[in-house]
Amino acid sequence: MNSSNKASISSVITELVGHLSQLPGIGPKTAERLAFHIIKTPESKITSLSQSLMKAKQQLTFCKNCFIVTENDPCSICSNEFRDHKTLCIVHNSIDAYAIENTNTYSGSYHILNGSISPINGIGPNELTISQLLMRINNNLPNEIIIATNPTIEGDATSTYIINQIKNDEVKITRLAIGIPIGGDLDYTDNKTLTQAFNSRQPIR
Amino acid sequence: MNSSNKASISSVITELVGHLSQLPGIGPKTAERLAFHIIKTPESKITSLSQSLMKAKQQLTFCKNCFIVTENDPCSICSNEFRDHKTLCIVHNSIDAYAIENTNTYSGSYHILNGSISPINGIGPNELTISQLLMRINNNLPNEIIIATNPTIEGDATSTYIINQIKNDEVKITRLAIGIPIGGDLDYTDNKTLTQAFNSRQPIR
Repeated sequence: MNSSNKASISSVITELVGHLSQLPGIGPKTAERLAFHIIKTPESKITSLSQSLMKAKQQLTFCKNCFIVTENDPCSICSNEFRDHKTLCIVHNSIDAYAIENTNTYSGSYHILNGSISPINGIGPNELTISQLLMRINNNLPNEIIIATNPTIEGDATSTYIINQIKNDEVKITRLAIGIPIGGDLDYTDNKTLTQAFNSRQPIR
Repeated sequence: MNSSNKASISSVITELVGHLSQLPGIGPKTAERLAFHIIKTPESKITSLSQSLMKAKQQLTFCKNCFIVTENDPCSICSNEFRDHKTLCIVHNSIDAYAIENTNTYSGSYHILNGSISPINGIGPNELTISQLLMRINNNLPNEIIIATNPTIEGDATSTYIINQIKNDEVKITRLAIGIPIGGDLDYTDNKTLTQAFNSRQPIR
């Protein structure tokens, strides 16, 4: 017997496992579990999922203004006249903007960088949408630019690079607060976060 | 702003996330990551995945003999004359049989129980394929029945029930060895496993 024997039980499952395990975060074991789940799932649900995947692939694009993943260009945020287009929140990826949208606290617009500066991965400023960001800032000077990059080495490098590129002194630049997350444990908080939380302590009264 | 605002950015993504997060082991966060991954994936790959899902749903069925998930009935194991049909390995699910097949150590046939006896979940012997197993044993008495249920309370209950139902004394019944897994650490091995490993110790010379 050899490993091709597995295929001989069900080539359909082997094929599906192959496709599923190419998805990010889906290992071969999860892929196998998902594939076997199919047999217990009503056909209508699988049809919906399958159609939904195709629809997403065919309809999703990037907003040419803010570069968010959307089916509308310009996106519903950029084209929404009730939003504050004088406030610009800069994030790495669309999923970050969606996360902020989920909080229901922000009503400005976004700019999606499409990644972070990472020399080790060969990603420099030109691979990101930084030139488009600077053009946006020039064309319509914001009152405030909120840097919402990740508080990581790469996120900080990206943020520093962008801040240096914004030559206009009139624009206010802010960044998201760094501190202990809600539900977090001081004891388990790393030194750097704790230091930042101390330094950025807020007056209570 | 309310939570429906998220849908307003991209209803296509919201829909896909909804479908994906119904899959087992895929939480809303993973579903969201998967959905955003689509935009970076070539359309051909998404088409293949989508078609593969539909194909699996339409073609997969259960082998009427051993109840394994397969597109052929009888399955390629039951219909393979080179396999040993006098040895029967009893497992909970098809995925377990596939795991055993992957080891390339077993060339007998299988019987898939389709779950385990679990009174707390309302699953009794009648919900499993135990009557069909007993019929198979009666029709073609195996030389050996290998119990490969999980070494858990539910797996043990299922195994005990099945053993009690096999009235024929001629048939040899074995179970998979319990012990320390390869790469395991004695220090981290639970008491029951360690006890079993001691009691089942093997002569070296």
